[in-house]
Amino acid sequence: MSSGKPSLHTCLSPALLHLYDLRGCLVVIIDVLRATSTIATAIHNGASAVLPVATVPRCIELGQELGGITAGERDGKVAEGLSYGNSPFEYPESFIGGRLLVLTTTNGTKLLHMALDNGAQEIVTGAFVNLSSVCDHLVERNMPVVLGCAAWKDRVNMEDTLFAGAVIDRIGRHFHLNCDSSHFALNLYRQAEPDLFGFMQENQASHYNRLMGFGLEKDIRYCLSTDKANILPIFRNDRLVKA
Amino acid sequence: MSSGKPSLHTCLSPALLHLYDLRGCLVVIIDVLRATSTIATAIHNGASAVLPVATVPRCIELGQELGGITAGERDGKVAEGLSYGNSPFEYPESFIGGRLLVLTTTNGTKLLHMALDNGAQEIVTGAFVNLSSVCDHLVERNMPVVLGCAAWKDRVNMEDTLFAGAVIDRIGRHFHLNCDSSHFALNLYRQAEPDLFGFMQENQASHYNRLMGFGLEKDIRYCLSTDKANILPIFRNDRLVKA
Repeated sequence: MSSGKPSLHTCLSPALLHLYDLRGCLVVIIDVLRATSTIATAIHNGASAVLPVATVPRCIELGQELGGITAGERDGKVAEGLSYGNSPFEYPESFIGGRLLVLTTTNGTKLLHMALDNGAQEIVTGAFVNLSSVCDHLVERNMPVVLGCAAWKDRVNMEDTLFAGAVIDRIGRHFHLNCDSSHFALNLYRQAEPDLFGFMQENQASHYNRLMGFGLEKDIRYCLSTDKANILPIFRNDRLVKA
Repeated sequence: MSSGKPSLHTCLSPALLHLYDLRGCLVVIIDVLRATSTIATAIHNGASAVLPVATVPRCIELGQELGGITAGERDGKVAEGLSYGNSPFEYPESFIGGRLLVLTTTNGTKLLHMALDNGAQEIVTGAFVNLSSVCDHLVERNMPVVLGCAAWKDRVNMEDTLFAGAVIDRIGRHFHLNCDSSHFALNLYRQAEPDLFGFMQENQASHYNRLMGFGLEKDIRYCLSTDKANILPIFRNDRLVKA
């Protein structure tokens, strides 16, 4: 049945991560709106690394210690004490080139640290803007994969699931898919694929509504576009660097 | 936005139930393959009640105490010490009419007790075989609803999600849907609806594979058919009875 292919699972929420044995696995952290889109963009535009941290105080502390740019939002605004936000448009090459970005996000950072604590062998981040790099890497590595959706406060969300579906649509044939969540994601993506933005709008995706309420349509459209920042962020030591 | 309609959420796994405030809610327990299909069938065929219990020893104990039929499976076989299994075909009117069924299942019973412990105001069970009864009741009650998928050992599954989608497809317009899981379920159902069995097969749904491996195609086909046992089991005191 598995015919020697490595397994691929989709974990729809951090609250389900304990169901998967991550040891020996490559885990893809997915937080499409907007953490992993911004991480790929910053590194694509020349950031030396992105250091993901869980809290605002830790972000400030590490920013000072390491001379990095501190960034992060809470409730749609730049968090107090930090200098920049979560938008990929804040990190053009002219600004971020050669610099370290210390970024605090809630859902994505939490999942990344959970994956580490649970023994993941390798961690990369994925978003539509670096879809091809992620897919190429997974096929090349040929090891068990868990696609980890960061979700929103543990609630399953549309855009992260769609990205998991996009990965499976491209490279699922190289893996043994034996979880229903992967089939969900794939089916959802195939329905949405002709117009991801329209699909999010039509289905009133919760995060779509939240960001549209902050006037961030441009960000959403960018985060749903393919290969605009097509590099692979990989987690080494305490930070994400270009693979 | 909500225009006074009650909310409807879909909880894809018991491991996500803590995200929902169940107080004042009507919770639909969904375990299509096969617990809630069998419960509806037994009550439709005249069982006086179904008493859901968590463990085999408790099932034996209550069966003796109350003079009920003891039933339940573990790993696809009638559990040691019990008399019958989980198949709806074991409970025709000639056998179950007027009798109490003490049923132990793993996923569905666990979720039902979790919903109770978390303050659900009303609990009913749903499956395709009683889809119309469930939908009519939800519209009539006009209160906040959580569609609770029993899943499989906390892993999201195809058939329970499809049933949630079927409910939303029929009566979603009477509710305020503000969770992405509900939109997933609805989209999945609309894709699958022309041929639920074929969809399960094509997507290699994990539970489909498990039951097919036990030679239970007939059960699966029955459990995916609509309104074959169209009554509403409602939880009162410690048991499910006809509403």
